[in-house]
Amino acid sequence: MYSKIRVGIVGYGNLGKGVELALNNNPDFELIGIFTRRNIDDIDSNSNIISFNKVLDYKDKIDVMFLCGGSAKDLPEQCPKLAEHFNTIDSYDNHKNIPNYFNMIDNIAKKSNKVSLISVGWDPGLFSLNRLLAQTIFPNGQCYTFWGKGVSQGHSDAIRRIKGVKNAVQYTIPSEKTIEEIKAGKNPSLKKEDMHKRVCYVVPYDFEDKDRIEKEIKSMPNYFQGFDTTVHFITEEDLIKNHSKMPHGGRVIGTGTTNKKHKHVMEFSLSLEDNPEFTASVVVAFARAIYRLALDGKKGAFTVFDIPLGYLSPKTGEELRKELL
Amino acid sequence: MYSKIRVGIVGYGNLGKGVELALNNNPDFELIGIFTRRNIDDIDSNSNIISFNKVLDYKDKIDVMFLCGGSAKDLPEQCPKLAEHFNTIDSYDNHKNIPNYFNMIDNIAKKSNKVSLISVGWDPGLFSLNRLLAQTIFPNGQCYTFWGKGVSQGHSDAIRRIKGVKNAVQYTIPSEKTIEEIKAGKNPSLKKEDMHKRVCYVVPYDFEDKDRIEKEIKSMPNYFQGFDTTVHFITEEDLIKNHSKMPHGGRVIGTGTTNKKHKHVMEFSLSLEDNPEFTASVVVAFARAIYRLALDGKKGAFTVFDIPLGYLSPKTGEELRKELL
Repeated sequence: MYSKIRVGIVGYGNLGKGVELALNNNPDFELIGIFTRRNIDDIDSNSNIISFNKVLDYKDKIDVMFLCGGSAKDLPEQCPKLAEHFNTIDSYDNHKNIPNYFNMIDNIAKKSNKVSLISVGWDPGLFSLNRLLAQTIFPNGQCYTFWGKGVSQGHSDAIRRIKGVKNAVQYTIPSEKTIEEIKAGKNPSLKKEDMHKRVCYVVPYDFEDKDRIEKEIKSMPNYFQGFDTTVHFITEEDLIKNHSKMPHGGRVIGTGTTNKKHKHVMEFSLSLEDNPEFTASVVVAFARAIYRLALDGKKGAFTVFDIPLGYLSPKTGEELRKELL
Repeated sequence: MYSKIRVGIVGYGNLGKGVELALNNNPDFELIGIFTRRNIDDIDSNSNIISFNKVLDYKDKIDVMFLCGGSAKDLPEQCPKLAEHFNTIDSYDNHKNIPNYFNMIDNIAKKSNKVSLISVGWDPGLFSLNRLLAQTIFPNGQCYTFWGKGVSQGHSDAIRRIKGVKNAVQYTIPSEKTIEEIKAGKNPSLKKEDMHKRVCYVVPYDFEDKDRIEKEIKSMPNYFQGFDTTVHFITEEDLIKNHSKMPHGGRVIGTGTTNKKHKHVMEFSLSLEDNPEFTASVVVAFARAIYRLALDGKKGAFTVFDIPLGYLSPKTGEELRKELL
C-alpha cells in the first residue's frame, strides 16, 4: 500500500540488534544503515555499518530512525539532535522523566516538522495501553501491574555497586498469591513490597564476604528493603552458564464491577524469552505508525496513546476490517 | 478538558441498560434521553424516556448516539437512518458482514458530515485490537482466539429452534489442553472443533423426546457437529434459577519466535460476570473517541483500528503521559 519505509538504526546494543533482526520479518522496511560511534570494523553484522559522524548525510535517505541507545545517557543526548533532522522512534523508559523528555522532544520536532514517537516497547508501551483501557472501561475499578519473572537490569546494577560484588543478576518474581486475590475480586490494597519477590544470584570476589553482602542487599532502601528477598552466592562460571539470558514478562490486571454485583477481570500478559528482541519487535511495528503520521503531515512528539493501532499494520483498513475485526 | 458530552441511547435491551448504567460512572457524559419504539409508559427507568418517533427533534441536542439494537435486524435498519443526522456508535457483531456494513455507513456519514464508530465491544473490539497487535508484532507467528466460558446466544437460539425444545442455554468452553499446548510454544494446527467444548442445558416440552433432541443437537452442522458436546435435560425452573446469568469471556493468544530460538507469548483475556454490561462499559469509553473525532472535523465510518486509545480517556495527553505511560 506504500513504498518501502527506509530506516536507520542508531546504537548497536541488544535493542539495536533486535531491531535489525525484526526488520528481516517485515519486508515493507528497508534498512539503510546502522550508525555507531564504535569503530565500524569492530562490528559483526551483514548490514551497512556507518560511522555516527556521517548520520546527517542520510537526512533525506531515511524515513524513520530507530534510536536504540539507553535511557540514562544516550537518548537524552541523541534524540534532541536527531529529531532536528529525522523522524525518530525510541523506547525511553525512565518513567518519572517521560513528561520532561516528551516536552523537550515535542518542541524540537515541531520546529523541524518531524515526528518523534517516544517510549515504545512493552512497559512503557503495551502495558501503558492496557492500563489506559482498564482505567477508562472500569472508571471505579482497580488496575495492577506485575513484572516478571524476569531480570531487572536496575536491581542487578544496584547489587553490582556493592563493594565486594563481582557480578550479579536479580530476578523480579510476581506474587502468585496476590494475583489470585486480585482475580478473585478481592481488590486488595497493596504495598509494592507485597507484589513482588526478589531473587538474587551474586558472584562475590571473596566468598567470606557473603554475610555482609547479603545484609547490604537486603537493607538497600527502595530496591530491596521490605521485599521478600533471597540471595544466592554462586561462581562466575555458574552465573554465565545459567543466568545470561534475558527473559522477562509481566501482566496488567484491570478489575471492575458493574451493577454493583457483577465482577469483571481484564488481563494482558507477556511471557518473553528475550526481552530486548521482543521490545524491538514492538518498536518495528510502531515505526509504521511514525511513517504514516509523517505522511499525514503531523509533527511533534507522540506516544502510544496517540496512535491508531491500525497504523501498525502494513495492511489496508479494508483488509483489517475483513480479516481481524 | 471539554464540556459534557451529550448522548442518547436507542434501544433499551440488555446493552442499552448497560450503557445507561455505565454512564453513571462517567461524569463527563450527560444522558439526554433513551429512545424506544415501545410504549414509553411501559419502561421502568429514571432516565428521560422518549418515543423513537421524536428522535429527529434531538438532532442538535445530542453529540453521540449509542445504537444498542441487535445486529441481525435493528442496526442495519437504524444506523443508516441515524447516521444521516447523528454521530453514532454501535456494537455490530455480524463479523462476516462487517465490510459491507462499514461501507454502507461510511457513504452515509461522509455525506452527512457525521462520524460513526462501528463494531465496538470486546469481539469485535478489544479482541480485534489484540489480534492486530499479535499479527504486527509477530509477523511470522500464530494468533488464536478462544471464547468462554460463556453463554453463546447463537448456539442457544439454534437449540431452541429444534422441535420439542421449550428453552435452552449453551455454554462455550475453551479447551484448556489446547491452550496449554499453545502457551508451551507447540504452535498446534487446530480445527475449530478442537478449540472449544459445548455444554447445553435443554428444557424439553416432553422428557420422552430427550434422545431425539440430543441426537439432533449433536448432528447440527456448523454449530455442534464434530464438537465435544454434552447435553443436560433440566426443568425450566432449574434453567431460570441456575442459567439466567450472562457470563462470558475469552482470550486472544499471540505467539512468536525471535532469533529462531526465543519464544514469546502475548495474551489478552477477559472473565466477565455480565457480558452486555461489560460491552456497554467498553462502548461508553469509545464514545469519547467519537466525540473527539467529530471535534477534529473527521467524517465517515471508523472502527477500533482507527482510534488513538488516548481518545478513550477524559484525561489530557499530559495527564496520561505522567500517570500511565
